[in-house]
Amino acid sequence: MINGGNADFKDDVRRAAFLRGKGISFLDVGTSGGVWGLERGYCLMIGGEKTAFQRTEPLFKTLAPNASSAKPTPGRRKGSGGAEEGYLYCGPSGAGHFVKMIHNGIEYGLMQAYAEGFDILKSASSPQLPPEHRYELEVGEIAELWRRGSVVGSWLLDLLAIALAEDPALASYQGYVDDSGEGRWTILAAVEEAVPADVLSASVYARFRSRQEHTFAEKILSAMRRQSGGHQERPSGR
Amino acid sequence: MINGGNADFKDDVRRAAFLRGKGISFLDVGTSGGVWGLERGYCLMIGGEKTAFQRTEPLFKTLAPNASSAKPTPGRRKGSGGAEEGYLYCGPSGAGHFVKMIHNGIEYGLMQAYAEGFDILKSASSPQLPPEHRYELEVGEIAELWRRGSVVGSWLLDLLAIALAEDPALASYQGYVDDSGEGRWTILAAVEEAVPADVLSASVYARFRSRQEHTFAEKILSAMRRQSGGHQERPSGR
Amino acid sequence: MINGGNADFKDDVRRAAFLRGKGISFLDVGTSGGVWGLERGYCLMIGGEKTAFQRTEPLFKTLAPNASSAKPTPGRRKGSGGAEEGYLYCGPSGAGHFVKMIHNGIEYGLMQAYAEGFDILKSASSPQLPPEHRYELEVGEIAELWRRGSVVGSWLLDLLAIALAEDPALASYQGYVDDSGEGRWTILAAVEEAVPADVLSASVYARFRSRQEHTFAEKILSAMRRQSGGHQERPSGR
Amino acid sequence: MINGGNADFKDDVRRAAFLRGKGISFLDVGTSGGVWGLERGYCLMIGGEKTAFQRTEPLFKTLAPNASSAKPTPGRRKGSGGAEEGYLYCGPSGAGHFVKMIHNGIEYGLMQAYAEGFDILKSASSPQLPPEHRYELEVGEIAELWRRGSVVGSWLLDLLAIALAEDPALASYQGYVDDSGEGRWTILAAVEEAVPADVLSASVYARFRSRQEHTFAEKILSAMRRQSGGHQERPSGR
Repeated sequence: MINGGNADFKDDVRRAAFLRGKGISFLDVGTSGGVWGLERGYCLMIGGEKTAFQRTEPLFKTLAPNASSAKPTPGRRKGSGGAEEGYLYCGPSGAGHFVKMIHNGIEYGLMQAYAEGFDILKSASSPQLPPEHRYELEVGEIAELWRRGSVVGSWLLDLLAIALAEDPALASYQGYVDDSGEGRWTILAAVEEAVPADVLSASVYARFRSRQEHTFAEKILSAMRRQSGGHQERPSGR
Repeated sequence: MINGGNADFKDDVRRAAFLRGKGISFLDVGTSGGVWGLERGYCLMIGGEKTAFQRTEPLFKTLAPNASSAKPTPGRRKGSGGAEEGYLYCGPSGAGHFVKMIHNGIEYGLMQAYAEGFDILKSASSPQLPPEHRYELEVGEIAELWRRGSVVGSWLLDLLAIALAEDPALASYQGYVDDSGEGRWTILAAVEEAVPADVLSASVYARFRSRQEHTFAEKILSAMRRQSGGHQERPSGR
Repeated sequence: MINGGNADFKDDVRRAAFLRGKGISFLDVGTSGGVWGLERGYCLMIGGEKTAFQRTEPLFKTLAPNASSAKPTPGRRKGSGGAEEGYLYCGPSGAGHFVKMIHNGIEYGLMQAYAEGFDILKSASSPQLPPEHRYELEVGEIAELWRRGSVVGSWLLDLLAIALAEDPALASYQGYVDDSGEGRWTILAAVEEAVPADVLSASVYARFRSRQEHTFAEKILSAMRRQSGGHQERPSGR
Repeated sequence: MINGGNADFKDDVRRAAFLRGKGISFLDVGTSGGVWGLERGYCLMIGGEKTAFQRTEPLFKTLAPNASSAKPTPGRRKGSGGAEEGYLYCGPSGAGHFVKMIHNGIEYGLMQAYAEGFDILKSASSPQLPPEHRYELEVGEIAELWRRGSVVGSWLLDLLAIALAEDPALASYQGYVDDSGEGRWTILAAVEEAVPADVLSASVYARFRSRQEHTFAEKILSAMRRQSGGHQERPSGR
């Protein structure tokens, strides 16, 4: 049995043990590529018993993009695991979805880094700024530019360039940003391992915040400010 | 000349030099106590030429709360600077407002810590949670309780208890939270000194966020999500 | 049966159900006051069946600090739960330790806010700064001062003033900072409730970081920097 | 006069005004591409008087990578600014370096997102974890895998794959991570514009932290912990 969707890796561990008791092999397979996967290829992160992987390896080799889908990494000796061809046996049960989970956690962080940067670019026209330090920047042109030779080039930037080409002010978006479980689980994994994960956590929290009109936390702040300094709330705006 | 309001300490340095050239002494004095200062006392953080401070010290001694306003610190030998009486000569020009600036930066951090904690308490009733882990907590009672012997007792908590006694759901607050310059300047000081200031910065950013309906950053996220995964925005809600 | 230590509230829920099946009532009681509790009093956060609480309430009333341990909150009508006397029935099983958990999460945030602020004060003498914006601040005096009438006064600040009176440079401390489970669990609770908790999370992560010489994350950064820009690592220092 | 290095955009504004008074045109040009620029091409972000840009445009067109250096963006109509060819007139004086500054701020965020994610992957072997949730992951293989079709593919990931192919444990790196001015200036710009920049700030702070053995902040935490709870510091380790 192969679970090729997203799942909590701890469920995989439990399910694999359960199925093993019934004589059924279980592989957990994380897939990355999004809706573009069919056209662009998608890579596979595989966990479970090694023998089960070996039996099914031809399947993954067939599905995965092949080695020519990316330039060779200079200085790299070919590994045994299939990474160059776009699939990888990661380890025992849960390892595939664990790696996929972190992949998604990183994705959240990358997206948030671009998001904050483009917000600062856009807000450079703010009337709060002195006129000589104020700029009206064409953020769609900048995204397009950075696709050429820059250090921040990435597939996510390619997507952002498409979105900004279609709708340069992003007026068709509200900014309610959902999150799937993987981003949250990444935080839990970091906490369990005692690894500082400021950026990955802040990325998930920004999405939580985006889905509320105002948090109770903000009302607490308003209440303390009124009590301590007699500050009345401003109606709105920056 | 005494500037007893809030000011950027760099302006003090400039102004003191300018006034020195005109034979005028300048002291920068930060004051903390809020609108309760008259009743409760307020402390004074003083910067400028030491001789100017010495000439005016009787003034500060008169204004400051006296030593009995707080219990003596166990093990402390009386200092020379007046700290026990509620005023302190902090150093040359700008030092008073520099210390006041950091005071306000810390205040933002303390407020945000309470705010997040009370939000988690309040949101413990979320229908997202399994029923057996869901609680309807009376946050006003909790604030009142923590005023008695707990580790998180503080004057800000006393204020929060007042606000929650008046309006337990904080329904009269919107949650648009202003910030004064000191919180922002604290970030700049941290950056100039290369001191990590994750909490103080996040506290200021939470206020920036509170004053916008949606950030451009969030629209960027929505746009990238639609491009990569075909995710449509949910209309609203958590 | 009363669990008056710290525990994961989910364990309480499980244990209470188990004990209920055996005809035993179970209360989960969080206690805050630290090693000073005996002298200063300590408050109690109680979860479990209401009838079990009511049977044992005289116990809590006896242990708790009484109403005179804090000034009355202006405008507050006496509640029914005992909060004014230093104990509170918070709700069904787990509620006591849930509230205690958030209490500790807030404590971490408060401590980190002070810690960052005092670091910026201390580092104001950094040779990176222009001489006219450089200050040698006596942080122990500042802590003592802020105990008098300031907005940032708290019990934790009182403790910090003691520590700085004993050892103004904190030379006897290394800075390896442990964390108990409650701070971590607070993050998990925030994630489960979808509440942004940037400050509380950053406070826990700062402790994780403090216990390592260098993180693997930092080596990743060094490696990427060398590849992208030919940057060699500096041996050390800011 | 063309400044093709990195500079604070506010200096450009000042210098351009000064030079204008002397009849000299000044362009500020940010360049991105790192040490790989010669081989891979590099893009140019240009600020200054439009007429000065137009006079020198052939120069930029020659230096920039051309349109074939990236696949066309679906749905995009060719812009007038040169973005498709790898150079862009961004606006008046300072605009070029402003855009370059944000570019670097984003770069820091992207790098930190990968760094945290790979740290969580590496630390999945932590003995703190229950054995069945513990994995020995080959992070170099994972980096190589993700170069093929994954959502987190990027040029920085390509570089990381090279570094990990050379030295899978990154044993030759210490983890002292420098920062150039642009990351810091990005924070200042965010603060001036009142844009929340949690991720970009945390990325810079992680570098500040990496260059110290222990912060004063951490000693403050140790000191408060000993005072409040009698906690002694553990000697080291996680």
